[in-house]
Amino acid sequence: MERIDDVTIEGQQARSVWVYAFDQADPRDRTRLGGKGANLAQMVQWGLPVPPGFTITTEACKAFWQAGERLPDHLQSEVSMAMLRLERAAGKRFGDAFHPLLVSVRSGAPVSMPGMMDTILNLGLNDVTVRALAYQSQNPAFAYDSYRRLIQMFANVVFHVPLDPFEHVLQSAKARHGCKFDGDLAAGAWKEVVATCLRVYAERVGEPFPQDVHTQLRLAIEAVFRSWRSQRAMVYRKLHNLSEDLGTAVNVQAMVFGNIGEDSGTGVIFTRHPATGERALFGEFLVNAQGEEVVAGTRTPQPIAELAIKMPTVYRSLITVAHQLETRFRDMQDVEFTVERGRLYVLQTRNGKRTAQAAVKIAIDMVHEGLIQPQEALLRVDAQHLRQLLYRRLQSTDGLAVLTKGLPASPGAAVGRIVFDANTAVAWAGRGERVILVRPETTPEDIHGVLAAEGVVTLHGGMTSHAAVVARGIGKPAVCGCDDLRIDMEKLTLCAGEAMLREGDWVSVDGGMGMVFIGQGTLAEAQMANELNELLAIADQVRRLRVRANADTPEDARRAREFGAEGIGLCRTEHMFLSPARVPLVQRMILATHAVERKAALDELLPLQVADFTEIFRVMDGLPVTIRLLDPPLHEFLPREEELVANLGRLRAKATSESEIAEVEQLLCQARYLREANPMMGLRGSRLGIVYPEIYDMQMEAIVIAAAQAVESGIQVELEVMLPLIGSTKELRHLRERMEQVGQAVMERLGVTIDFRIGTMIEVPRAALTADEIAEDASFFSFGTNDLTQMTYAFSRDDAEGKFLNVYFDRDILSSNPFETLDTRGVGRLIRWAVESGKSRRPDLKTGVCGEHGGDPASIAFCEELGLDYVSCSPFRIPVARIAAAQAALQHERIG
Amino acid sequence: MERIDDVTIEGQQARSVWVYAFDQADPRDRTRLGGKGANLAQMVQWGLPVPPGFTITTEACKAFWQAGERLPDHLQSEVSMAMLRLERAAGKRFGDAFHPLLVSVRSGAPVSMPGMMDTILNLGLNDVTVRALAYQSQNPAFAYDSYRRLIQMFANVVFHVPLDPFEHVLQSAKARHGCKFDGDLAAGAWKEVVATCLRVYAERVGEPFPQDVHTQLRLAIEAVFRSWRSQRAMVYRKLHNLSEDLGTAVNVQAMVFGNIGEDSGTGVIFTRHPATGERALFGEFLVNAQGEEVVAGTRTPQPIAELAIKMPTVYRSLITVAHQLETRFRDMQDVEFTVERGRLYVLQTRNGKRTAQAAVKIAIDMVHEGLIQPQEALLRVDAQHLRQLLYRRLQSTDGLAVLTKGLPASPGAAVGRIVFDANTAVAWAGRGERVILVRPETTPEDIHGVLAAEGVVTLHGGMTSHAAVVARGIGKPAVCGCDDLRIDMEKLTLCAGEAMLREGDWVSVDGGMGMVFIGQGTLAEAQMANELNELLAIADQVRRLRVRANADTPEDARRAREFGAEGIGLCRTEHMFLSPARVPLVQRMILATHAVERKAALDELLPLQVADFTEIFRVMDGLPVTIRLLDPPLHEFLPREEELVANLGRLRAKATSESEIAEVEQLLCQARYLREANPMMGLRGSRLGIVYPEIYDMQMEAIVIAAAQAVESGIQVELEVMLPLIGSTKELRHLRERMEQVGQAVMERLGVTIDFRIGTMIEVPRAALTADEIAEDASFFSFGTNDLTQMTYAFSRDDAEGKFLNVYFDRDILSSNPFETLDTRGVGRLIRWAVESGKSRRPDLKTGVCGEHGGDPASIAFCEELGLDYVSCSPFRIPVARIAAAQAALQHERIG
Repeated sequence: MERIDDVTIEGQQARSVWVYAFDQADPRDRTRLGGKGANLAQMVQWGLPVPPGFTITTEACKAFWQAGERLPDHLQSEVSMAMLRLERAAGKRFGDAFHPLLVSVRSGAPVSMPGMMDTILNLGLNDVTVRALAYQSQNPAFAYDSYRRLIQMFANVVFHVPLDPFEHVLQSAKARHGCKFDGDLAAGAWKEVVATCLRVYAERVGEPFPQDVHTQLRLAIEAVFRSWRSQRAMVYRKLHNLSEDLGTAVNVQAMVFGNIGEDSGTGVIFTRHPATGERALFGEFLVNAQGEEVVAGTRTPQPIAELAIKMPTVYRSLITVAHQLETRFRDMQDVEFTVERGRLYVLQTRNGKRTAQAAVKIAIDMVHEGLIQPQEALLRVDAQHLRQLLYRRLQSTDGLAVLTKGLPASPGAAVGRIVFDANTAVAWAGRGERVILVRPETTPEDIHGVLAAEGVVTLHGGMTSHAAVVARGIGKPAVCGCDDLRIDMEKLTLCAGEAMLREGDWVSVDGGMGMVFIGQGTLAEAQMANELNELLAIADQVRRLRVRANADTPEDARRAREFGAEGIGLCRTEHMFLSPARVPLVQRMILATHAVERKAALDELLPLQVADFTEIFRVMDGLPVTIRLLDPPLHEFLPREEELVANLGRLRAKATSESEIAEVEQLLCQARYLREANPMMGLRGSRLGIVYPEIYDMQMEAIVIAAAQAVESGIQVELEVMLPLIGSTKELRHLRERMEQVGQAVMERLGVTIDFRIGTMIEVPRAALTADEIAEDASFFSFGTNDLTQMTYAFSRDDAEGKFLNVYFDRDILSSNPFETLDTRGVGRLIRWAVESGKSRRPDLKTGVCGEHGGDPASIAFCEELGLDYVSCSPFRIPVARIAAAQAALQHERIG
Repeated sequence: MERIDDVTIEGQQARSVWVYAFDQADPRDRTRLGGKGANLAQMVQWGLPVPPGFTITTEACKAFWQAGERLPDHLQSEVSMAMLRLERAAGKRFGDAFHPLLVSVRSGAPVSMPGMMDTILNLGLNDVTVRALAYQSQNPAFAYDSYRRLIQMFANVVFHVPLDPFEHVLQSAKARHGCKFDGDLAAGAWKEVVATCLRVYAERVGEPFPQDVHTQLRLAIEAVFRSWRSQRAMVYRKLHNLSEDLGTAVNVQAMVFGNIGEDSGTGVIFTRHPATGERALFGEFLVNAQGEEVVAGTRTPQPIAELAIKMPTVYRSLITVAHQLETRFRDMQDVEFTVERGRLYVLQTRNGKRTAQAAVKIAIDMVHEGLIQPQEALLRVDAQHLRQLLYRRLQSTDGLAVLTKGLPASPGAAVGRIVFDANTAVAWAGRGERVILVRPETTPEDIHGVLAAEGVVTLHGGMTSHAAVVARGIGKPAVCGCDDLRIDMEKLTLCAGEAMLREGDWVSVDGGMGMVFIGQGTLAEAQMANELNELLAIADQVRRLRVRANADTPEDARRAREFGAEGIGLCRTEHMFLSPARVPLVQRMILATHAVERKAALDELLPLQVADFTEIFRVMDGLPVTIRLLDPPLHEFLPREEELVANLGRLRAKATSESEIAEVEQLLCQARYLREANPMMGLRGSRLGIVYPEIYDMQMEAIVIAAAQAVESGIQVELEVMLPLIGSTKELRHLRERMEQVGQAVMERLGVTIDFRIGTMIEVPRAALTADEIAEDASFFSFGTNDLTQMTYAFSRDDAEGKFLNVYFDRDILSSNPFETLDTRGVGRLIRWAVESGKSRRPDLKTGVCGEHGGDPASIAFCEELGLDYVSCSPFRIPVARIAAAQAALQHERIG
């Protein structure tokens, strides 16, 4: 970077280290110049109409903090030199009684922190220069108004004096003079206002407003540096995971005035529509106004198209500038401009914020326009952000009162009338009503209600509760754990605070936000526009990671293929046990007191499982399907103990037949026997398969029969059987050998050969720690990062999310939710170890992630770094995963 | 080792690789010779009276298995050569019609497997040689009886024919001839018996008894090799963790006969008393009998002292031999001998099995006798075994019927009368009764009953249930999870199967075995004999690892010091919350709806905690005390939900006052609010400290006040404050900083300075994985291996031990219980990583183990290997740990 070293002060040559003029700075050095400074330098160097100025680097900010909130001496002399040069460029002098130079002082961090940092305008005005400005502009009202603005902004930014007392001065002056608008005040009145403001200033600050313009400048620079550590800036950085060490730069720029008359003005434009991505100028402007007024919203600006009528020449220039900026920055720009006496100045430009929809459209349009390469288009979208395109959403929540806020258990939105039990849900839905099922919690017995409803709300249970899991699986919105709601099942009412709803009342559910609103909102459908498909096609060419789906049913599988899944990475067989028709069979199997009886119940389940699998194979023709054998503890298939006890009480009160009572008693007895202190770590997964081998035998038999039927009808089956909750190689070997035997026996019986591979979930820390041994018995590892995160942190997700994670976020003990974004330091270390040591024993080991992290962009980037083969996520996340995988591949290539 | 290479067969010189004569083998080579063979060679080479013979090595056994259960040709020729040499030494020939050599063929593995392997005697007898033996011995009955024995033993060992049909032949012959004893049968009758036995043999085996003596020998050797893989041998090896690859040797030895007349006999002696360790010959003998008869118990042998009267010369020789053996083998010997016509032969010697008490006494006596070095004495005891000396035990359970078997939740024994609730326990104990508290399960509300009772029996709950933890802490026996018991609280009866006991009936409890007996057994007190103290003193000089105690109360601490603890490694503060007087305060604290109210309840707890800590500091004067802040979830301090519901029902039925009902309702409401899906992974430990900071604040304040009081009264306090369930360095830093501030504030208030160090439990896998970061905020790591094992395996101990660990042991998926012996492969890998990476950041990091593994010898050996600083275990385990630590140091030195 060139330095301001051609300026001499009193013959002395000095090298600048902290201060760079716009026309001499290296625009690529955003770290030191900040985003705003770099863009100003860039625009100046491209010859765009930018008022001259200079940037004080972020390193000066660090030096300021290191020196104990003091500007180092050398910095002060560098600023003096830069001001000399600026005076020369502007043809005015700072503090001059005839041609005073006025400047703005603005912060500009390396990363955009909109609205977070401080700005002071009109610096250089004092009792003397204000008169010169009045004379030069032939507009005393403008000059004094500018001075007033400086005084109050300066008091506010430098000394944290609130704005109200100054505003009050202006308001009472207007009242006194019977004026409605600022512009109506006469010059004399303005002088009075300024005098009063100076008095207010002196009272509030404890010393007079500095008449020395260099003091003004020094204090302003210090204030901007100090604002880096303001409460709001720190909160923002925390929220966005930004480093505290970046520091901010300061931009000092000659003022231009949009409030100098009717031939002046100020505005903001986006070079394309930030909501839709449409290619047309979008923005607004105010005549005879300063920039702050647009932002502050004190006056209502006009649409930018009006400018074509009001100032056609300026408008044409603006179009040219917008085109230039977009072409040169190669992205949609958010531009602040000012018109001073008919002349256009660009004050700032940056890449414009945009909706997910706009991001996709703009990226693809720019590829078509030849502005960017297809791969660049990929990096122009925030993959996480894309999710909102894939679900229905509430068009607007204006006018809807919030009923409650719970956990965002399953994304998407729904609108319907509330019902309180599954049977009513089915009945109402049967006659064409849209219903929302509201339950204390859901159990397998409610599943027909969940299927019939548009969405589900529960009072208890977390992100992994039954309702949440089922709803996510079938892509319906759910809000869980709304523990401020109360249901009265007698009166059929639902209360939250003061609000009371009755059965049949309308509510609107936003599962992605975890919100429930009172009333009937309007839904907006999900959008998979052509541009998104085009972007996905680009992603598919770039990415290395395969993307599979977590899909448990043929419907899931179909949806997954539509979204571009390249296989099923996790087919949970337990969900097949939960359909209402099967629950009695499953319960009989659980109630069996010995293996023979259990086998009989399982024999009845067998053909049903076969049918499920056959259909899934048919849908996934030619793609791999990973079927996980039964995982959850058996008591999950029984009604809750409390419910059984209550039920028993009712039956007894009604003097029901003995046999009916006995049946419930037996269920209760078994539920109590199966009760566990910590079911997450109890009799489930492979342990279930070892203790009750008949269950896995049946499942394996069903899988092989289904595969054989599929193959017979010309379907290509690529089968992977996955064993859950493995903790040691002996568990795995025991089950693998048994499953191979069962598979072999079935194949011999049917006279067919089905190729299948057996692998394991890695979801228990010990499995990861002994992955070298485990790899000898597994042909693939699928990291079950949900459970692995739970065990590694010793966080029960259901308990943690309700009881302490919020406190952890508040106290900055956790910066992100490890159940959403993979904890690379702890859990990631286990995964890395498992991949490396597993591959050391079995180089062709296939590896993937099938936890919820499989759909999270940051986690996908980590999977790319580790060289996993695939990620698997819920069908609705697949487009996100495809984009994120491609982005990760590009990033990895860049680093690697 | 020298080889039998001086024997030529038909002029051909052959090198032996698998067969070694006793006088030529190298006795140090136990791996190849087996224990018995090595000892026989040793005795022969020391000149002791041992019949000549040779050993076929364990490598031949492996070759046999590798060759598909066939003796390799070369082995057969080596055996032939060795037999030639044996014939020369014995002055008889194998199969000779006049001077037939008879041999025994016995197995002998490198590690003793008593009674597990097969033996055949009298090999070499056939229809011809039996006549020569009859002639030579002048005792045809003896000769034919020997032949009969060979036939049936051969049929049994080689062809697995049961013994009964042969025994039946003998019994019916005796009946036919009207004889009571075998010896009464005449020679003619014996010939009949043999002829019949040969017929039975041919029928059962399908071919005649081999008359060719070399065939006999070959088949016998093969049978011994084959017995290595017999069911019972494999079960034994599994039980004792012995390798399948060792193989067994075979010893072929010239027969001597104890059953040749009244001047002959056979017996077994121990050179010291195997139960008490007393230094005197102990054993028994049978006149005119073969060794198998002593073992089989068909005749009742006489005490060895009788031999001094019956055969004084032989007895004197035996004393000399015993002394020689003990001096030379430097350990107590278990010796088998035979007297043939007044001449003593030693057939076998081995280190004798002994009780823990005998092991200690013998080891220390031998040190005093100068026979072994003090350090060797340490390796002569099984540390695990020593536990039985430290608890009271049931002297005998003869005559006591088993009531039930449950989990061995807390060791020791107790005898008392059953009561069914805590209040009755206290009342009865108050009037001097010994009581056993029997409860469905215990809660904090029962603690006064547990304290008053001699022992506890519960129907539900596992090794970590409340009853188990409390009982272990106070050293009382407990048997938990006796789920076949039924209590009827109305009738005050206890049933198990057919048995029914009433309140007040006597039971005897063995907490170490998990047994409950009906009736009043006799207790034997714990023994800490002088010899044990002497051994412990030796251990203390040898060991590097410090041994601390897990002690929660001043009583625990006192006991711990008596047992030799060098500090407290884990003082659990929650137990201080559980005393009956404090439960109401603790519940008030939990019911508090905001911090101020909670603080008020905590303020009342403060002085109580101060008193606890002060007394503990006083007891531990000069030794480190590690205090862990509150760990368990708060709902553990509330009554169980079911109990509250039942209670509420009762109160309502009785129309109790509204306020009383409201109180219970509030408790129930809070219990429901605090309910967790997986409390093990819920709101506990440091999470509790972060969410409810007032609790840890109070504890820290109490600790510092107590330390100040102790220091004031001249006590030396070495304080360590431990934060539980840390999973990330941010959690730790947050709490460390807060605790330091609280500590500082209290010290300033009191005007004192107390040195304290803050460290953390490593019990969450993530803490171990990120130990490098965590070490920056912790001055010590104490591995909480109980929870670390639970999380690493994803085993909830309470659920696993009841529901599937047994199946895992049965199916050989687990070979030992990871909650008893540390899993070095998985959990150990985490610990190793944590120690190494922790020390890389903080070289002076102190490390220890405070889980139950801290008292387990195998786990202690691992701690030594990792170079930890200390282990901490329950007071009763401390002597075990001291010995085990010393043994580990010696082993480590030997390897390292």
